[in-house]
Amino acid sequence: MFELIGYIAGICTATSFIPQAIKTFRSKDVESLSLIMYLIFNFGMLCWVVYGIYLQSVQMVLFNVICLCFSLPILCMIIFFKSKK
Amino acid sequence: MFELIGYIAGICTATSFIPQAIKTFRSKDVESLSLIMYLIFNFGMLCWVVYGIYLQSVQMVLFNVICLCFSLPILCMIIFFKSKK
Repeated sequence: MFELIGYIAGICTATSFIPQAIKTFRSKDVESLSLIMYLIFNFGMLCWVVYGIYLQSVQMVLFNVICLCFSLPILCMIIFFKSKK
Repeated sequence: MFELIGYIAGICTATSFIPQAIKTFRSKDVESLSLIMYLIFNFGMLCWVVYGIYLQSVQMVLFNVICLCFSLPILCMIIFFKSKK
């Protein structure tokens, strides 16, 4: 039961950035997104991946890599679209 | 060394929503923020806290509660400011 909650938690936080990435890619609007948030968040995610590799936790590495796959493009879009203004 | 990386990861992801919360509170602009992202993310964070309590991991509960303290207000602001339009 609790193991299931752990999996739901992992899936939710890993996939939560997908709708934001799609929205930002479509609208190209990054006005209300915080650059600092995505800088800190992506750096933190990278640290989680490194820590997960050290702990040899497949779930930890997997969930955080999935999360990075969507949060990193958002960061890139923020930098790209802000610089174009 | 790797334990330190784990702590840095936790601190980064837990505090990353602070700049977004401040920015959104100041600007009241939620146009480019994804409601679905914050719904999924906050639900996931809540699951992490429950799972952390089950695992009796103080760090897990602490980091995720801090994260929730900032991501939940962002969700509320998105709902509030979108409904005012």
